[in-house]
Amino acid sequence: MLVVMKTDANEEQVQAVIQEIEKMGYRAVPMPGAQRTAVCIIGNEGPVEDSRLLSMDGVKETIRVTRQYKLVSRETRLDSTLITVGDIKIGVGKPVIMAGPCAVESEDQAINIARHVKEHGATIFRGGAFKPRTSPYSFQGLGEKGLKIMDKVRRETGLYIVTEATDSENLKIVEQYADIIQIGARNMQNYSLLKLAGHVSKPVLLKRSFAATIDELLMAAEYIMSEGNTQIILCERGIRTFADNTRNTLDLSAIPAIKEASHLPIIVDPSHAAGKREYVIPLSKGAIAVGADGLLVEVHNEPSQALSDGPQSLYPHQFKELMKVIGQIR
Amino acid sequence: MLVVMKTDANEEQVQAVIQEIEKMGYRAVPMPGAQRTAVCIIGNEGPVEDSRLLSMDGVKETIRVTRQYKLVSRETRLDSTLITVGDIKIGVGKPVIMAGPCAVESEDQAINIARHVKEHGATIFRGGAFKPRTSPYSFQGLGEKGLKIMDKVRRETGLYIVTEATDSENLKIVEQYADIIQIGARNMQNYSLLKLAGHVSKPVLLKRSFAATIDELLMAAEYIMSEGNTQIILCERGIRTFADNTRNTLDLSAIPAIKEASHLPIIVDPSHAAGKREYVIPLSKGAIAVGADGLLVEVHNEPSQALSDGPQSLYPHQFKELMKVIGQIR
Amino acid sequence: MLVVMKTDANEEQVQAVIQEIEKMGYRAVPMPGAQRTAVCIIGNEGPVEDSRLLSMDGVKETIRVTRQYKLVSRETRLDSTLITVGDIKIGVGKPVIMAGPCAVESEDQAINIARHVKEHGATIFRGGAFKPRTSPYSFQGLGEKGLKIMDKVRRETGLYIVTEATDSENLKIVEQYADIIQIGARNMQNYSLLKLAGHVSKPVLLKRSFAATIDELLMAAEYIMSEGNTQIILCERGIRTFADNTRNTLDLSAIPAIKEASHLPIIVDPSHAAGKREYVIPLSKGAIAVGADGLLVEVHNEPSQALSDGPQSLYPHQFKELMKVIGQIR
Amino acid sequence: MLVVMKTDANEEQVQAVIQEIEKMGYRAVPMPGAQRTAVCIIGNEGPVEDSRLLSMDGVKETIRVTRQYKLVSRETRLDSTLITVGDIKIGVGKPVIMAGPCAVESEDQAINIARHVKEHGATIFRGGAFKPRTSPYSFQGLGEKGLKIMDKVRRETGLYIVTEATDSENLKIVEQYADIIQIGARNMQNYSLLKLAGHVSKPVLLKRSFAATIDELLMAAEYIMSEGNTQIILCERGIRTFADNTRNTLDLSAIPAIKEASHLPIIVDPSHAAGKREYVIPLSKGAIAVGADGLLVEVHNEPSQALSDGPQSLYPHQFKELMKVIGQIR
Repeated sequence: MLVVMKTDANEEQVQAVIQEIEKMGYRAVPMPGAQRTAVCIIGNEGPVEDSRLLSMDGVKETIRVTRQYKLVSRETRLDSTLITVGDIKIGVGKPVIMAGPCAVESEDQAINIARHVKEHGATIFRGGAFKPRTSPYSFQGLGEKGLKIMDKVRRETGLYIVTEATDSENLKIVEQYADIIQIGARNMQNYSLLKLAGHVSKPVLLKRSFAATIDELLMAAEYIMSEGNTQIILCERGIRTFADNTRNTLDLSAIPAIKEASHLPIIVDPSHAAGKREYVIPLSKGAIAVGADGLLVEVHNEPSQALSDGPQSLYPHQFKELMKVIGQIR
Repeated sequence: MLVVMKTDANEEQVQAVIQEIEKMGYRAVPMPGAQRTAVCIIGNEGPVEDSRLLSMDGVKETIRVTRQYKLVSRETRLDSTLITVGDIKIGVGKPVIMAGPCAVESEDQAINIARHVKEHGATIFRGGAFKPRTSPYSFQGLGEKGLKIMDKVRRETGLYIVTEATDSENLKIVEQYADIIQIGARNMQNYSLLKLAGHVSKPVLLKRSFAATIDELLMAAEYIMSEGNTQIILCERGIRTFADNTRNTLDLSAIPAIKEASHLPIIVDPSHAAGKREYVIPLSKGAIAVGADGLLVEVHNEPSQALSDGPQSLYPHQFKELMKVIGQIR
Repeated sequence: MLVVMKTDANEEQVQAVIQEIEKMGYRAVPMPGAQRTAVCIIGNEGPVEDSRLLSMDGVKETIRVTRQYKLVSRETRLDSTLITVGDIKIGVGKPVIMAGPCAVESEDQAINIARHVKEHGATIFRGGAFKPRTSPYSFQGLGEKGLKIMDKVRRETGLYIVTEATDSENLKIVEQYADIIQIGARNMQNYSLLKLAGHVSKPVLLKRSFAATIDELLMAAEYIMSEGNTQIILCERGIRTFADNTRNTLDLSAIPAIKEASHLPIIVDPSHAAGKREYVIPLSKGAIAVGADGLLVEVHNEPSQALSDGPQSLYPHQFKELMKVIGQIR
Repeated sequence: MLVVMKTDANEEQVQAVIQEIEKMGYRAVPMPGAQRTAVCIIGNEGPVEDSRLLSMDGVKETIRVTRQYKLVSRETRLDSTLITVGDIKIGVGKPVIMAGPCAVESEDQAINIARHVKEHGATIFRGGAFKPRTSPYSFQGLGEKGLKIMDKVRRETGLYIVTEATDSENLKIVEQYADIIQIGARNMQNYSLLKLAGHVSKPVLLKRSFAATIDELLMAAEYIMSEGNTQIILCERGIRTFADNTRNTLDLSAIPAIKEASHLPIIVDPSHAAGKREYVIPLSKGAIAVGADGLLVEVHNEPSQALSDGPQSLYPHQFKELMKVIGQIR
């Protein structure tokens, strides 16, 4: 349930409402907005008796939240959430481009790619240090060494860093180095990790599992937000279907569906969905046209030598082409 | 196998090659192109002994066709196929917009909608007369009466007509009235109907089954083309997946995949994929951005009263908005 | 809606109810049962005003049918339908085994296989004469010649014949030769063919499309039954999923689901689902254990030479093993 | 690569081979078997130069392992793995029945259910203490208190305990109380957790993700085994498809597929697949018929009051019926 405050309600009245809710045995989460402040009640099972709340000073009305998720729902917060990373804003206006290699392999490689993608318009560098791999015998990433390289990338290029954490231990390390912490598709329902991500001081990039519905993705985001971290960027990266023309089927209808259901920004990773670099440019154009707030794209200086995901990594000149192509929209 | 003729090969030399192929017990299909003429050999099982062919006058080389489909493959024909319907060309340049109601319900309704969609840029009117419905108790379309109404729509508005045939009997009738004959998703593997569609004198709009891979769609097109009809427009309309945010998951990666594999034009039906009108405009924009040659969109003067598929039909003012939005691309 | 007659209602009273329903503009289909006779109302949109019917002699009550399908629903007919083919009964008790090659290739082959499967317990011979094939260049079956061979198989072995019809023309021919007419998975939503199958004098074996829900399968059966043919056997043959260990994923939960929803018998085709002969025996055992009324199994005298579906055809000795294995259940 | 030792090779010769492999920079894992001992080489990328190994005393031959997974592959170990839990053996002969509530809710409930399932043939008690739930607001289990209750269940009934661990922290606690540690479907690709499970002293029950292929499941098991723990039981629990008659589609073809590819035992959880208790008994019967080594079944004393998964939990009398039904097989 949402307790909507009057436009002129003051801070004291909001605090009184919060205390009343906690007295009832629930948790209260204030949701400030441009037009109004509201207080979201969570932790209740079944309906909440709201007559006492309605009679309090400054309370305008109560609204039942119809979805399973509450804090991430647009019912609870009408304004779209804007994520700020340094001087970049994600969620409004110009799409944000995050680009870089699947895995950081060496300092030379990383800085080389970073300079190129920055030159052509990327503002965030993506690179894997802790890689979740299907086989225990595949390259698992450089670990903290990879993070130190990305730290250098940031200092040398001014790009911000997004990189993945896969468990409670490396989350602590990643938090020190990254500007945005990625939770990967395979960990989308790793609830222990989601809860920890709810306590970090950085924005979280939460990728949709290739087997998750939109509601399940939003429930995963709710896990993070219910622990306190409101800075969440969602990411569509393809779902598993019978279709074999791509590795996963990019579900671009997820963009309007999420915009309707939630106030969180949503970006698209065309590289992992396609699994083939040939489709990354048209799918990127499609993603921006459908309304995505940004892209997460794999670029490698020498894809044929890449230690992981070479077939889907763009050549540098293709990234330049991609930036030109998406510039033709809007 | 493809027998590629020299640039300066004459008609007599092509005919000699055809006769030689037929003498070998195969079928020969000439594939004229801008750069070269080629002759495609079909009906062989296993490799073809080509030494005799290679020694003939005017023959440049032979190329093994690696895909299961041959005539529809871009290996066989490098130039994109252009479909001509009156003064409209489908497959190159400006996207073609086909719009109208799911089912033709009355003359008033049809002409009313037709005028509106024409005014805002549609050039082809879509409307169902023979409707394949999941339930035998649902409205099955007006049949030939619906076709006569669409005939009137054409005369009054100048729009061309696309409408569906579902069996051998109504195919004959539809052929008389339609400018483009639609084979629906449920009939994509109705091989008897596909073969008959290979003998009609009109272009065929072949929709991808919601359970078909790209290869299966192209094999279905091969059924039509191997019977003689080369005028085929493909249509992506969503595939069946676990995702429940839309009725079907629109697979926009099918557009670059088909452009790579085949010379046939491919359009997108966002309405049936979405199942909700709210997503039709963003998905249309995405489809055009990805490179689709056109759209097939449901528009109804009064969606809440529609006899079928009301929830996904655009209101007239939304169609106007859609045309504006897709105009922002390219 | 279902009008349930009293136990002692006479034929005249039933006829009066039918006439009254037709006067209301609907169709009336009597559903005789062991315990009671009922009359099903079809063709209505929305609720039926039943006060007049309730006041008629012999009427016990009216029941709203909650599912989209009516005649095939167990709500409408409590007793399980029993299909009789000669001296065989399908739908109660002992599972019925239908076995034979994917395609009839020659008289020798067919009789050879038929004798073997009969010896080990099959009572129905399956063989394709009109084959729906993904490629127009694959072997399409022997056509009527294949049917004549199967006619001979029946005379020589006493096995009954099940074979597929794929369009209105070959349906007429198949009807003359077959004891059971198969509608294949690809034609499950070929409504024109389903309607024609509603008028044949033989039982219909309706295979679930690899992309159909249970409700859609039952709606397809409803198309047949609403045209008059009540002799329908359903068949589960695997659905299309992401899993790649088999060609299709055999959905054995469909058996209890269909038994609950419908009064029609349901058999299982493990061969097409598996796509590999190694899995046919365990899946057959599973199918019978789950409650299937029979099996449709591919057997070939020389699978490596089969013109179609060799990899999934059992060797003769494997069929013998299969019969032994399923004998261990119940 | 697998280095197969001669039947009469002695321990010294095996050790020499191991040292030689380690000298080459790889890891060596001995795989003792009934017929032969072999040493599996892991950690190589690309082919291994084996001439030196072939010339060593006691070495019979080397075999290339063709699958991505090695230690769990039947290529590497011909004999089926037998898991021993107290006096129970899993993987050979009589199916093992694990039964109990989705979540342990109280001591009374747990002991009550445990006594009932033991009386009717279960040997292992299943119960959740750390529950991964889609919503952060759902009941998350009793945690360690639940484990203590299960400890009491073991002491009072003699049943062994299987329960789930979801992260590195609760894994340590679960290891102290459980006889078998479950890794749930959502964590099947939580590689950090899998690696830790490779170091516990108890057998691991690894559930197939509802979105995983068989190969991905076996790669997950390889993660555990490559860390040292060879005691792994696999579990099929349904995959996500478009079919809506059950919550997930139980893929019983996974049983023969896994038996062919791996030496590990495989059991079936019909409850989570079905999502409806009505289908649990037929699916259990099907699972045993197909060759599963056991069942994991939800049973609750009062399903309508269950804090989670009530709709799929069997009533006590239904569990008795299930045990009777599966007794009819084999």
